[in-house]
Amino acid sequence: MTDNHEKFMRRAIELARNGVESNHGGPFGALVVKNGEVLGEGWNRVTSTNDPTAHAEIIAIRAACKALGSFQLEECVVYSSCEPCPMCLGAIYWARPSMLVFAGRREDAARAGFDDQFIYDEIGKSIDSRTIKTKMIMSSEATEVFQLWIEKEDKIAY
Amino acid sequence: MTDNHEKFMRRAIELARNGVESNHGGPFGALVVKNGEVLGEGWNRVTSTNDPTAHAEIIAIRAACKALGSFQLEECVVYSSCEPCPMCLGAIYWARPSMLVFAGRREDAARAGFDDQFIYDEIGKSIDSRTIKTKMIMSSEATEVFQLWIEKEDKIAY
Repeated sequence: MTDNHEKFMRRAIELARNGVESNHGGPFGALVVKNGEVLGEGWNRVTSTNDPTAHAEIIAIRAACKALGSFQLEECVVYSSCEPCPMCLGAIYWARPSMLVFAGRREDAARAGFDDQFIYDEIGKSIDSRTIKTKMIMSSEATEVFQLWIEKEDKIAY
Repeated sequence: MTDNHEKFMRRAIELARNGVESNHGGPFGALVVKNGEVLGEGWNRVTSTNDPTAHAEIIAIRAACKALGSFQLEECVVYSSCEPCPMCLGAIYWARPSMLVFAGRREDAARAGFDDQFIYDEIGKSIDSRTIKTKMIMSSEATEVFQLWIEKEDKIAY
């Protein structure tokens, strides 16, 4: 298994390198693999597509889900050339693969100028102490829609 | 300003309600507003598009960035019918709006069956103790690509 992990990680790193050389975005690549088959690949395209969510992992997850026709990545492995940022880690949790393998650490990303650690820190803070001003209003109105969902008989839970 | 916040939040909640009634996905809506103008709207479409990243905020952010032709939401307010999950909060941090306003709380989302709190807990854990098995390999190879990025003279930082 170690050999396969290295093979796929080498590809994730290659995608990261290609993305930098092609001016698509930051130095990050990712892929989703199921039973040894690559279902989706991604590399960072934030600046070239004006999409702050176009991280390698998000693109790879979306591609793999499209290939599977499912919003869940059962029995899949996500390979990322770097430790996922909180956005991508959240996406990985929602997609529910069986495993995550990464190479670079968040500290390495920080040294290259990426805010991952800052965002990790912010997410752990209470709403009042975050850098982006945050306000809560109209909670009871929102709860009505949750109630509608709870009572909905033909819903697809996820 | 409070009146405007309520007006836009009412719309976010309406999007959430419409999404549930149209079977597009979970009970969540969001919009991005700049100087009183709605730049992007979104509602959850996870199950109807087989995309685990198709949360209301992600869709609204992508739409607003497209409208602005920018990967940054300067001077924008993000309205979400519910406290953003870690994925969406991460996306908000990357997009860098000036403010976030939300209605429902993560506890309300949990009662309706959504894992937000679970993911918040997981993100705070060390890699060894997370539910999704996580492995780090080949960090030095990944660091070479970061070095390439650091030395790249024509890069667009973000």
